[in-house]
Amino acid sequence: MKIGLMGYGTVGSAFYTLAQEHADTQIAALLDLKTHPEVACRQTSDYRSIIEDQSIDTVVELIGGLHPAYEFVTAALKAGKHVVTANKQLVCACYDELIALAEENGVSLRCTAAAGGGIPWLHSLARLSRCDRITAVSGIMNGTTNYILSAMTEQETEYADNLREAQRLGYAEADPTADVEGYDACRKLVLSANIAFGVSIREAEVPCFGISGITAQDVAAFKRLGLVCKLIAHASLREGRVSACVEPMLFPVSGQMAHISGPDNLISLKAERVGAQSFAGAGAGGFATASNVLADCMEIARGCETFYTSLRTPAAVDNAALEQRYYIRTEAGAQSMRLTVNAAHAMAAEYKNKQQPFFMAAVAEE
Amino acid sequence: MKIGLMGYGTVGSAFYTLAQEHADTQIAALLDLKTHPEVACRQTSDYRSIIEDQSIDTVVELIGGLHPAYEFVTAALKAGKHVVTANKQLVCACYDELIALAEENGVSLRCTAAAGGGIPWLHSLARLSRCDRITAVSGIMNGTTNYILSAMTEQETEYADNLREAQRLGYAEADPTADVEGYDACRKLVLSANIAFGVSIREAEVPCFGISGITAQDVAAFKRLGLVCKLIAHASLREGRVSACVEPMLFPVSGQMAHISGPDNLISLKAERVGAQSFAGAGAGGFATASNVLADCMEIARGCETFYTSLRTPAAVDNAALEQRYYIRTEAGAQSMRLTVNAAHAMAAEYKNKQQPFFMAAVAEE
Repeated sequence: MKIGLMGYGTVGSAFYTLAQEHADTQIAALLDLKTHPEVACRQTSDYRSIIEDQSIDTVVELIGGLHPAYEFVTAALKAGKHVVTANKQLVCACYDELIALAEENGVSLRCTAAAGGGIPWLHSLARLSRCDRITAVSGIMNGTTNYILSAMTEQETEYADNLREAQRLGYAEADPTADVEGYDACRKLVLSANIAFGVSIREAEVPCFGISGITAQDVAAFKRLGLVCKLIAHASLREGRVSACVEPMLFPVSGQMAHISGPDNLISLKAERVGAQSFAGAGAGGFATASNVLADCMEIARGCETFYTSLRTPAAVDNAALEQRYYIRTEAGAQSMRLTVNAAHAMAAEYKNKQQPFFMAAVAEE
Repeated sequence: MKIGLMGYGTVGSAFYTLAQEHADTQIAALLDLKTHPEVACRQTSDYRSIIEDQSIDTVVELIGGLHPAYEFVTAALKAGKHVVTANKQLVCACYDELIALAEENGVSLRCTAAAGGGIPWLHSLARLSRCDRITAVSGIMNGTTNYILSAMTEQETEYADNLREAQRLGYAEADPTADVEGYDACRKLVLSANIAFGVSIREAEVPCFGISGITAQDVAAFKRLGLVCKLIAHASLREGRVSACVEPMLFPVSGQMAHISGPDNLISLKAERVGAQSFAGAGAGGFATASNVLADCMEIARGCETFYTSLRTPAAVDNAALEQRYYIRTEAGAQSMRLTVNAAHAMAAEYKNKQQPFFMAAVAEE
């Protein structure tokens, strides 16, 4: 396999190192704005010199973000090159279009590292979806927020202090919005639900409430109740209707969920035949993510995988039937009430518009 | 795919039901000693009528045990048929021979359901082993013993009572030896280590101490120390040396391991690049296991998988460097001491020979 590598950040440079260690994966060219003295292959800052290179059969896109990744990936697919990417934002936003392009051009599109970092999550969903009916996917899909929430619980410190510490440790980016507001988890959820249920839901339809409003007082209140807070993405398929939501949830301190601390992920599925399964591991990190990217490449090299599933029935997100107990905290104090997901997230949006203090968390039910 | 199904027990009948639901998998014939009125395909009690049926491309072996499964599977491979099996005893005992036969005949041999029931464990090990160096595999690989140990811990009842209850519920077989003495976990460990490390170790070389000697008093003593007992299979690869062992281990009651109760499995790996990963789910059960068997069939139908890894470097099990703290209980009472795995298991064998009461459990270190 001759690879054109696009991007040389944390994951890109880790992938370069890993690919060098394997005889099957040869990196023919690297696209980056800077040149890197330690890189032995041809380097370029013009993506066309990778697209037009007939010797390159596979493009590994590790730039991230919507643009110019979209232009580069679509050009690669149209040029008949396989694409492996860890770019959840791109694959989530352009799900149907990218799969269709790959199919039209008879090439593979793989993105296992786009959800769960090094965990073979999307790969396992695809394997299971071929022979069982998956009815739910859920879990801790974002390491940054899990690190912050774990630290707040252990140290009883404020959100802002822990966000800074997460940034210092490299667990959070300079602009942490996508992580802390739940958008990153939301994209991983959309990808997971699409592959698991054989549907095509859209990110914009998924109610998404993050953790930026949480205070040390909230965490202390949860502790007194024997609960810990986790940012959870969950989706289910019931009677043909897809529900999906990202929100903080409260779990018993003695339970399994409470043990996932730091930047780890714990992702679970339910299926009619195999029952409940869960997968835990490093949800981010250069080498863990790069390893999953490389595993995707190896599968393409073995000639066995195209996309995870060819089914993509358009589906609207419908949370109407989903009602939970919520912890709601406003300036007036905290209270607990049963609400539909729609009502709770509408309330959150209202407080956000008014720029008034607000935090909510659903109480997990067994 | 036209399938010759061998065996119609719990997993066999579940597989028949599942395969019927999928257009890609057609069951052409069923081999069983009894005939089953509910089965629509051709039925036979002579395995040769399946081997000689040119229309059958894949044999699914769900009889279990060494013989006659060995004869049936080798005949199928020699006849150029793919084989999918959940038979850990067979694949473990005849690992090298079966892979070589499959390779010689250009067919696939898959056995994902042989370890972890419905969990895609061996499949994930193979995927990861192609691009990372796996250095350890371990966990709760046997549901029967986990059910018994969980029940003893929750109800403070004796081993024999819980074994009977497990048998009543279908979690333990009439002859529970393979489960309670750790042989079943040992076979799953050997398969896991072989695929993860690219070696070929032999079951007979793995020290194996089960749970049949545990008493309610032992469990009460662990509880007082804040510990719970689990039967753990663990193997690691260090400086080219493979260590492997099955033994009861003690974990903090507040930790993750303690939350795996009933017949569930929790299996983990460590690898250089992705770090620690774990997989949890139903480790047994007809439909969970059959679902994994069907997923293997689907992969063969997609033309993408042969065996998990082609590497099988013969390796001796070498536990010499492995030293742990052990809880040791004899007629003289209980004590805690640091011992090598070899010394501890030699002591266990000595007490067994003398037919004197003995139980031991290693204290898990993190």
